[in-house]
Amino acid sequence: MATFREERDTFGPINVPSDKLWGAQTQRSLQNFDIGGERERMPEPIICAFGVLKKCAAKVNMEYGLDESIGKAIMQAAQEVAEGKLNDHFPLVVWQTGSGTQSNMNANEVISNRAAEIMGHKRGEKSVHPNDHVNKSQSSNDTFPTVMHIAAAMEINSRLIPELKNLHSALHSKSVEFKDIVKIGRTHTQDATPLTLGQEFSGYVKYGIDRVSGTLPRMYQLAQGGTAVGTGLNTKKGFDVKIAAAVAEETKLPFVAAENKFEALAAHDAFVETSGVLNTTAASLMKIANDIRFLGSGPRCGLGELILPENEPGSSIMPGKVNPTQCEALTMVCAQVMGNHVAITVGGSNGHFELNVFKPLMASALLHSIRLVANASASFVKNCVKGIQANKDRISKLLHESLMLVTSLNPKIGYDNAAAVAKKAHKEGSSLKEAALNLGMLTEEEFESLVVPEKMIAPSD
Amino acid sequence: MATFREERDTFGPINVPSDKLWGAQTQRSLQNFDIGGERERMPEPIICAFGVLKKCAAKVNMEYGLDESIGKAIMQAAQEVAEGKLNDHFPLVVWQTGSGTQSNMNANEVISNRAAEIMGHKRGEKSVHPNDHVNKSQSSNDTFPTVMHIAAAMEINSRLIPELKNLHSALHSKSVEFKDIVKIGRTHTQDATPLTLGQEFSGYVKYGIDRVSGTLPRMYQLAQGGTAVGTGLNTKKGFDVKIAAAVAEETKLPFVAAENKFEALAAHDAFVETSGVLNTTAASLMKIANDIRFLGSGPRCGLGELILPENEPGSSIMPGKVNPTQCEALTMVCAQVMGNHVAITVGGSNGHFELNVFKPLMASALLHSIRLVANASASFVKNCVKGIQANKDRISKLLHESLMLVTSLNPKIGYDNAAAVAKKAHKEGSSLKEAALNLGMLTEEEFESLVVPEKMIAPSD
Amino acid sequence: MATFREERDTFGPINVPSDKLWGAQTQRSLQNFDIGGERERMPEPIICAFGVLKKCAAKVNMEYGLDESIGKAIMQAAQEVAEGKLNDHFPLVVWQTGSGTQSNMNANEVISNRAAEIMGHKRGEKSVHPNDHVNKSQSSNDTFPTVMHIAAAMEINSRLIPELKNLHSALHSKSVEFKDIVKIGRTHTQDATPLTLGQEFSGYVKYGIDRVSGTLPRMYQLAQGGTAVGTGLNTKKGFDVKIAAAVAEETKLPFVAAENKFEALAAHDAFVETSGVLNTTAASLMKIANDIRFLGSGPRCGLGELILPENEPGSSIMPGKVNPTQCEALTMVCAQVMGNHVAITVGGSNGHFELNVFKPLMASALLHSIRLVANASASFVKNCVKGIQANKDRISKLLHESLMLVTSLNPKIGYDNAAAVAKKAHKEGSSLKEAALNLGMLTEEEFESLVVPEKMIAPSD
Amino acid sequence: MATFREERDTFGPINVPSDKLWGAQTQRSLQNFDIGGERERMPEPIICAFGVLKKCAAKVNMEYGLDESIGKAIMQAAQEVAEGKLNDHFPLVVWQTGSGTQSNMNANEVISNRAAEIMGHKRGEKSVHPNDHVNKSQSSNDTFPTVMHIAAAMEINSRLIPELKNLHSALHSKSVEFKDIVKIGRTHTQDATPLTLGQEFSGYVKYGIDRVSGTLPRMYQLAQGGTAVGTGLNTKKGFDVKIAAAVAEETKLPFVAAENKFEALAAHDAFVETSGVLNTTAASLMKIANDIRFLGSGPRCGLGELILPENEPGSSIMPGKVNPTQCEALTMVCAQVMGNHVAITVGGSNGHFELNVFKPLMASALLHSIRLVANASASFVKNCVKGIQANKDRISKLLHESLMLVTSLNPKIGYDNAAAVAKKAHKEGSSLKEAALNLGMLTEEEFESLVVPEKMIAPSD
Repeated sequence: MATFREERDTFGPINVPSDKLWGAQTQRSLQNFDIGGERERMPEPIICAFGVLKKCAAKVNMEYGLDESIGKAIMQAAQEVAEGKLNDHFPLVVWQTGSGTQSNMNANEVISNRAAEIMGHKRGEKSVHPNDHVNKSQSSNDTFPTVMHIAAAMEINSRLIPELKNLHSALHSKSVEFKDIVKIGRTHTQDATPLTLGQEFSGYVKYGIDRVSGTLPRMYQLAQGGTAVGTGLNTKKGFDVKIAAAVAEETKLPFVAAENKFEALAAHDAFVETSGVLNTTAASLMKIANDIRFLGSGPRCGLGELILPENEPGSSIMPGKVNPTQCEALTMVCAQVMGNHVAITVGGSNGHFELNVFKPLMASALLHSIRLVANASASFVKNCVKGIQANKDRISKLLHESLMLVTSLNPKIGYDNAAAVAKKAHKEGSSLKEAALNLGMLTEEEFESLVVPEKMIAPSD
Repeated sequence: MATFREERDTFGPINVPSDKLWGAQTQRSLQNFDIGGERERMPEPIICAFGVLKKCAAKVNMEYGLDESIGKAIMQAAQEVAEGKLNDHFPLVVWQTGSGTQSNMNANEVISNRAAEIMGHKRGEKSVHPNDHVNKSQSSNDTFPTVMHIAAAMEINSRLIPELKNLHSALHSKSVEFKDIVKIGRTHTQDATPLTLGQEFSGYVKYGIDRVSGTLPRMYQLAQGGTAVGTGLNTKKGFDVKIAAAVAEETKLPFVAAENKFEALAAHDAFVETSGVLNTTAASLMKIANDIRFLGSGPRCGLGELILPENEPGSSIMPGKVNPTQCEALTMVCAQVMGNHVAITVGGSNGHFELNVFKPLMASALLHSIRLVANASASFVKNCVKGIQANKDRISKLLHESLMLVTSLNPKIGYDNAAAVAKKAHKEGSSLKEAALNLGMLTEEEFESLVVPEKMIAPSD
Repeated sequence: MATFREERDTFGPINVPSDKLWGAQTQRSLQNFDIGGERERMPEPIICAFGVLKKCAAKVNMEYGLDESIGKAIMQAAQEVAEGKLNDHFPLVVWQTGSGTQSNMNANEVISNRAAEIMGHKRGEKSVHPNDHVNKSQSSNDTFPTVMHIAAAMEINSRLIPELKNLHSALHSKSVEFKDIVKIGRTHTQDATPLTLGQEFSGYVKYGIDRVSGTLPRMYQLAQGGTAVGTGLNTKKGFDVKIAAAVAEETKLPFVAAENKFEALAAHDAFVETSGVLNTTAASLMKIANDIRFLGSGPRCGLGELILPENEPGSSIMPGKVNPTQCEALTMVCAQVMGNHVAITVGGSNGHFELNVFKPLMASALLHSIRLVANASASFVKNCVKGIQANKDRISKLLHESLMLVTSLNPKIGYDNAAAVAKKAHKEGSSLKEAALNLGMLTEEEFESLVVPEKMIAPSD
Repeated sequence: MATFREERDTFGPINVPSDKLWGAQTQRSLQNFDIGGERERMPEPIICAFGVLKKCAAKVNMEYGLDESIGKAIMQAAQEVAEGKLNDHFPLVVWQTGSGTQSNMNANEVISNRAAEIMGHKRGEKSVHPNDHVNKSQSSNDTFPTVMHIAAAMEINSRLIPELKNLHSALHSKSVEFKDIVKIGRTHTQDATPLTLGQEFSGYVKYGIDRVSGTLPRMYQLAQGGTAVGTGLNTKKGFDVKIAAAVAEETKLPFVAAENKFEALAAHDAFVETSGVLNTTAASLMKIANDIRFLGSGPRCGLGELILPENEPGSSIMPGKVNPTQCEALTMVCAQVMGNHVAITVGGSNGHFELNVFKPLMASALLHSIRLVANASASFVKNCVKGIQANKDRISKLLHESLMLVTSLNPKIGYDNAAAVAKKAHKEGSSLKEAALNLGMLTEEEFESLVVPEKMIAPSD
């Protein structure tokens, strides 16, 4: 049998499950926002960031006079939140108040009840007060954007950048491995002049990491200290700088107080911007994954230049079929990232006056995109890129059949004559050399000295 | 201590947790697609739809010679899947193979092992074979689009349409309740001519339900019977019609066999279309929620024409503050729906040849949007719309101060003269009547007979 | 030397070029909104629709007492606008007031000056008054949404639907032409079981026309008669119905008065919805164009199953290259349509109170999308689809090399055995038959009677 | 009567209007791509960039042996293109081949014919050859991405950044002008604690310029020298560096040769990225414009804190109405930019192998966005921001009526007690002071020393 205790807020008393640490405001939100079910709970990196922030706030608040025993208990409780030990006590969904107030109160309530327990008091008695102690000098309006930035910066540093580097490195290794394999190029999906397979792989994900890093200076700016509308009412001078320093120390990331707190509450351009970079990454990755699956298409009726690793049976009806499933997972992730980007843009553009109230949506969508790109990149590297092999026989066969080797004749016989050669060969199903000799354009020796795929992969001296 | 049993597929043996019903292919997918964590599992309506489909397939397959005892065991096991009893045995995430093959195999494996148990056999022995029995006459390529359609149609009928009707009805009630309250209109956010508050509410969500219903004929078309590429290889003639009829009977929804199976596998235009309708609904709901929060803004420094229900404390720093939180949750949902729509569009546009391989993404994003709109509408009705009250004093005060009542003078004194009256009143901070009389445009009697807000809310006779 | 005349509005006098018919408000807009240059002018279908509407308004206004000689002159002038004869007098850009007021005044001013000339008066004298006569019983707030609907409905009927039908018909013809060509199917871009080329083409653009037609009932609803805020102030009862009837007669399209004028001014869900349908069409067309270019890729190193018409030289450096340029134009159009759809969605979601003020944007973006899809479809049909030929030799070669023909062995030897055959053949580079016989799975006769591509393109009896 | 001359390419002869400089390939494109009409012509900055590039190419080609007299004539002709003198000779639309080949050939043809004339030859004779001379060492595949980058970089530097700086500066001036005006803050659109109007304006467009500048290093990388597939076939070593240097000198912008030519042809991540920054700017500007129109709403029934400049009559039916039309134009632009961003993202993600063939779309959409943001910002500054006045009386009245001043009591009486005060005042329609005294929470002196809006706009000492 479930048992309950009474908690209260300025709206009055309300029953809360006895085994949960949350209080009245969390309970109200749970009842008022029955939207989407458990999967829609506030992302865990936000909960963790609340732990970090509340710990740092207690630490700084003690400097400004918060009772030491209360402050230390808060710090201990907040540390448990930061470590994910109390995740079950954070039941609220993303689709709540647009300021994230209810999740801030969830954190305040859980930490105050837990801190009270640590101090030997009972839950619900408010011996440690969620507003006056845990939320001291803070407002949801500055804490929520602060945890948004902490969570995003931590996920970017711990998850996204390492996996993008990993991906870049894996592709670069392939580029080196394949550097001497000359193959036909394709433009407009049609046969074109040759390049090496290594060159083809060299163009992938070059600047993605730079782009992500380039947004971090703005992500490291914390709203904390702005309180309700950005003015810092009910904080002390210097509180903003101290708390940013404490968060920086706690996370080992270079957080600073936001230059302009009004902007930090009312807009979330840093999130729109970072999502834009993930969107660029998604466009880039979709192209790569598409290339790899098309180059690996076959085994007998496709391009067949790459051999992709076989990780699982491909079809429930076609025996022996193997599919580029990692490419598929990755491209689906890219589509979702593009979609999340629009959600974030719409949210970011709809702030009003002193507060943007699309915060939980923006936090959730960006953290979703970060995790998906990071995880899918890791999976793609491990289960696809590393195992890619070049199908050298097939590559060589296609290369030598191609008509576009004719391009190397341009400087010698001119574009119009070269076109005539290619068209004749195409029409007659013959080789370029046959066509060129038949048209009397050049001698066999000339042809053979000019049309050498290995010499067509770089500018001439 | 976790224990394992050996399962096998065409790739060989693999260990599976003993307490799980899934088999080798599910286990491989779990290991190969570590993307996003548990929240990213295939949506439950898809699992349920697999239960429905596999039950119906067994039923029809028995007509075509499937052993009766196996067929019945499959039906019983599939029914358990349909009822959600085996959800813990469906661990795969959305970000897997783009055909959903692995989730189809997950269903086949769970049902075959469960059916084997029902028949007194052991898991893993394949006495009921996942491919040859459970997946008989099917391919992932037709089952997955089929469950996409079943799941979406069920969610639309059981969740979305009822909640949209509920919302429409709640808004309509308010429209009736407020039909005699004359208030100032606002265009360009600026004061305009009057209307009733009931008229204002009457314009909301008129056609949303029609739009959703309009897409159902295409959603009721099932791919089943197309097998691998749409041709129906390895099925019998008539299988497609029978299985659609069985699904229709099971779900009480008018499913039919798709007119063109090639389209049904290779494109998902019905999903892009339905998402487009949800996108329209989102645009519509965002407008409504914005209006309500702005009309309810205040309490003292906003428009203040509506009094919104107070559901929870609004601020962790500003005591007594009450916020339009239901509007905020709803508008955040709208932003996510717009984003999901782009994800679905990108996925839908990237099919190739005989198969679109963005299926799990499209399924997940559409079902996400459906559930969010339905839940958020229900929450909005219950926790906001029903409790909205008109602030009659405020409405009346604003109405009578407005300058735009001058518009009713146009037919009498012409646009240019009426403009002069309004401008004079604005400049001098006077009333319209004072300005009109001072300019000698008309007599007091004339003014009072013409400028009557209650007469300005409809065409004249 | 440019000469000017003085025009005036409620803001005072302003100089207007003597050779132009527009008046003061147009001139102000021209000066205040220097955004984007001439290419950004209000789309011509909007100008034309203004001509239609103002003509009809004059006609109906005469029934309600508008002076006959003035009314007839307005009708004549408006007819000239409808025919595009006065396009040079509509210089305003899309990026103006969000209600389209300035374009409505542009129409009023041009028509009043032109009507005055017809009656023998001078420009600028307001003998025919732009507001009191031409705009009689109207507001920008109802005229602009009315012309949006007229323009969109006309473009859809005269341009979009015919070209989509044309495209559907061209693809259908190819489907019939290719009905006996059996070819390899491709799923996951990998080899799959066979189908006919005709079947492949049969899945294209099936429901696009239905979807477009399905939105028209809402597009045929006209806001006219709602005037400033939807109440119909300053019109007479019945004006709305009469003017919709007049427009219907003039355009031969079944326009009616909008059921709810408040919705018709404040939201543009019909535009978001119609754009959603164009977005679905774009997703559909992108898939088709991608398929065609990949199937036509080569000539020697691609799939090469289709031969696309050669319309122009393909490369400025690679002689003899021919590219699928019509596919490229079409897919670029699709991308723009998807983008315009987001613009329209954002615009549609941001209406406030009694008026959405993203009207010109929404009108421009939707008309842009309609025209692009219609024109690009026509070009695609004429310059690509009609000339597509099947490369029968290539198709046959690939078909017979494929391993996925193994699927037809499933019912006989089971999925696991069939998989073993396919894998052996793949590994050894042998034919399926060799592998099957070597494994002793079946006799040569059995193999040959089972593995017949021509029998694999439909369910069995 | 129109007259024609014969031009020819590898497809044969074709008639071209005598008065036009273009040749056979341009004429073919004109006939084959009848999509969208004249407004859809390739944007002028692209034409200009072709002039710059072709001039530089001729200059560098002379170093590598191009005949001096031909080279100089090409340079002169190209200069005319760069200056826009030959715009009428560039009739091709965006919706052409996806590599922009036809516009490259248009440039080659116009310049070759014009150069021939300069040298005293006739049009069409190919005495200066479009491919062999004007396009020497180039391919469309490297020239088109090169002109995309040149055009975008020039437009960003000459148009976008100056106008964003101008906007930032205008908003900053207002921030300074309004620094002492204390006003009520608004969060969740509801009354909140005070701030100064100057603080409110200080949060606007802070980082937009940094973000744009941050993308330039990648935009300055030119593909030129990659030729057909990125290898640089048919160029000489060093050509890429020399031409980038020549372009840099010509444009005074720090262009360099792209680090990786394969990426530069096959992906356009730099465009997706830059569009992402414009999208961020659009989200930011939409928020600002919305704030300004809501703060300026009224004149009598809105918030009324700002007085916006009156630029034109606002309504064709409501005399004397003035609307925030500049905000409307700007927000419509923002919506289009968000839409264009999706178009660019879709285009950028759909490149295949060695060439992205959505180039003209991406170029057109990005240049469109750049121009719209720049022009609309300029218009917004000139016609709105500069003229904004604070309505001090109204601001003061609202401030002193607000209940949220209660927040400054928190540190003294605690959150729960402060909430009780606010709720009592709200319920009774009384002032905060009355409520506080009635509840006996503090003395009048205490109240008056604590509740001082002017002291609530910053942290305390």
